[in-house]
Amino acid sequence: MTNKKGIILTIGNELLMGQTIDTNSAWIARQLQEIGIEIVRRLSVADEATAIFQALQEESARADLIITTGGLGPTSDDITKQVLVDFFHTRLVLHEASLQHVADLLQQRDIPMLERNRAQALIPEGCTVLFNRYGTAPGLWFEAKGRIWIFLPGVPHEMQYLMENEVLPRLKNQWPFLKSIQHRFVITYGQGESRVAERLGDFEATLPVGIKLAYLPGNGLLKLRLTAIDAQLHDSLESTHQQLISLLSDIVIATEDLPYEQIIARKLLTHKASIGLAESCTGGYLAHLFTAHAGSSAYFTGSIVCYAPAVKINVLHVPADSIDRYGIVSEPVARAMAEGARQLLHTDFALAITGWLGPDGGTPEAPIGTIWIAAAHKSQILTHSYKLRGNRNRNLQLAATHALHLLDELIKSIYPHS
Amino acid sequence: MTNKKGIILTIGNELLMGQTIDTNSAWIARQLQEIGIEIVRRLSVADEATAIFQALQEESARADLIITTGGLGPTSDDITKQVLVDFFHTRLVLHEASLQHVADLLQQRDIPMLERNRAQALIPEGCTVLFNRYGTAPGLWFEAKGRIWIFLPGVPHEMQYLMENEVLPRLKNQWPFLKSIQHRFVITYGQGESRVAERLGDFEATLPVGIKLAYLPGNGLLKLRLTAIDAQLHDSLESTHQQLISLLSDIVIATEDLPYEQIIARKLLTHKASIGLAESCTGGYLAHLFTAHAGSSAYFTGSIVCYAPAVKINVLHVPADSIDRYGIVSEPVARAMAEGARQLLHTDFALAITGWLGPDGGTPEAPIGTIWIAAAHKSQILTHSYKLRGNRNRNLQLAATHALHLLDELIKSIYPHS
Repeated sequence: MTNKKGIILTIGNELLMGQTIDTNSAWIARQLQEIGIEIVRRLSVADEATAIFQALQEESARADLIITTGGLGPTSDDITKQVLVDFFHTRLVLHEASLQHVADLLQQRDIPMLERNRAQALIPEGCTVLFNRYGTAPGLWFEAKGRIWIFLPGVPHEMQYLMENEVLPRLKNQWPFLKSIQHRFVITYGQGESRVAERLGDFEATLPVGIKLAYLPGNGLLKLRLTAIDAQLHDSLESTHQQLISLLSDIVIATEDLPYEQIIARKLLTHKASIGLAESCTGGYLAHLFTAHAGSSAYFTGSIVCYAPAVKINVLHVPADSIDRYGIVSEPVARAMAEGARQLLHTDFALAITGWLGPDGGTPEAPIGTIWIAAAHKSQILTHSYKLRGNRNRNLQLAATHALHLLDELIKSIYPHS
Repeated sequence: MTNKKGIILTIGNELLMGQTIDTNSAWIARQLQEIGIEIVRRLSVADEATAIFQALQEESARADLIITTGGLGPTSDDITKQVLVDFFHTRLVLHEASLQHVADLLQQRDIPMLERNRAQALIPEGCTVLFNRYGTAPGLWFEAKGRIWIFLPGVPHEMQYLMENEVLPRLKNQWPFLKSIQHRFVITYGQGESRVAERLGDFEATLPVGIKLAYLPGNGLLKLRLTAIDAQLHDSLESTHQQLISLLSDIVIATEDLPYEQIIARKLLTHKASIGLAESCTGGYLAHLFTAHAGSSAYFTGSIVCYAPAVKINVLHVPADSIDRYGIVSEPVARAMAEGARQLLHTDFALAITGWLGPDGGTPEAPIGTIWIAAAHKSQILTHSYKLRGNRNRNLQLAATHALHLLDELIKSIYPHS
């Protein structure tokens, strides 16, 4: 059975002006793929009736599903509903349940009901209303001749609630024969895209028809993605994945699509080990990576963000003398930071980093881009330095990846048989 | 003089599959606007020759500039150049300077030159080659009948280098008469979109023709954007902005488009004051917000990320008794964390936060979503609690905003005349 094709249409001047980064599209695409809908185009247009109408008209001819976000709010730049009235040749009618929900929400928040809030319960006649638990703008679902159009608010957590609770269950019900598009991943560290592609020349040449390989470099890692759109290829996808893993075994860090900190978190959980950090140049970013995930308190204890040298000395007990002799970005300082954090935070592992990410800073011995990392366990300590060549933000991402990799190496060394 | 219209076309299956969030489009849009090019559509298509060719054909008719990223790399899924040969009726020729650059880059990185790297110096005949300092894929610039097409690699820091050093200077040179599209911003805290829109009813009704107002809610703040596309309206934009500021003076936190931590950073710099943090539930995120910006070492000292209760007690000297009596998420604990951080980090200000962001945790007294914040100065301490209703990630963003707001209030109280 062939899959359905979908198009994501996002509405909003802020997207075209670059003031908002469109994270909704990626999230929606992943959900739709899970249920076997392949996104073939993604389009953003302005908050203008003509642009929206024209986009709906043109894109409708290209896909089975058009899913749209934005322009359903209570303010004057929210004009999507008026366009829908024209596009679907209908009219706005008051939807009592939605009005009641708006009233309840506002009462909960102790906000008076305004005419513009009441207007959010005006719904194009003939569509299905999708309940928006977290907001005053309901989702809208239209169907005609086997094609489906869905309109959702652009606020991410409202859109996500609607997708999970209203849209996906209805789509699965509507198109029960769909099989999900399957992916397999291999994440590698330490070799560039060209080098890996060269190693995979024969592998690519003999890939089964219908299985595709993509190279997705990012943050100092290279992610390889195998995709099978046809459900009949799933067995073959499995063996192709295994083949890829063994071809790259020397550089593989993960065989599924997880952020690096989650890969490490799993290992720490397996061994009931804890981690603490001492962060200078990453300034809390590594701690944020770990704590962004629910359940991190099971292994993550804390981080001493020691941006100022005095904090390194006073809190982590890095010898002032080491800083003077070797510089603030040096192996002895990284090592002392890791040891200090491990003892202060009472953890099994500690990871420390000091560096110059730019644009300011740097010394003759440790120019901008230099980082020193130390990973400590009571029985062993590893250190490593890198020279980074990007701007501040890219260097931060790379520094985090290199730090996690050194920690990963230490964990492998401490627990060699897992 | 009317402005030029641009379209951003991003190529890559990873964008449609939602595995990569498209940050390039927003960045490019902001740069182009600065020089007076209005983005009218943003489109993403797959790594498929037909899809790319068709998109080029259709979008070319709609704009003066088509700017494209992706598909120029060294691997087999990079097929953009082959499509260009067909689209522009040309052929690939070897570009010696690009080949030399590829050779130099690889040598620097101690990587052997491969045939696929050499192929990156094959350029469609008739286009202008844009030098890519950071990568092996050059940018490509085509012109015909007053219309411009630009093709850039999708790797963000390479794309950014090419935009800043090659594309923008050439566009300004090509279209010297363009005037930048002007925006003015007001950022508010504490009232929702509907409420603010209600307050601005008369203001909106009397906005000068050609000036638009947009409501951009996010992270617990509401950003209001005024836009004048026509350069002749810039004076009028200025006075409209002033009017908006005074209408909302009770809730305005900033009158330009800056992240909240940068607004606070400026105030700290003005008063030569320093800040330190004690973060439990935000887990390093607040520290990351401050340190993501260059120059933060002038005011930011460090953060004690005290995820585990023991770290609160051992490092920050929060009384264990307070935790037992009032709970880990309570006013006395937040207060002791702030005082502990201020003393340990020797800062003028300290900001502390403890809370349950979900999905785990919570107690009868402090259910999931409860946060307690304390902002401390030697002469004064402010505390505040909030109940958040989102998922973990949204609660993190909201917690950070509320924490920064409490710090902002304290700074205003300490320095009332600035």
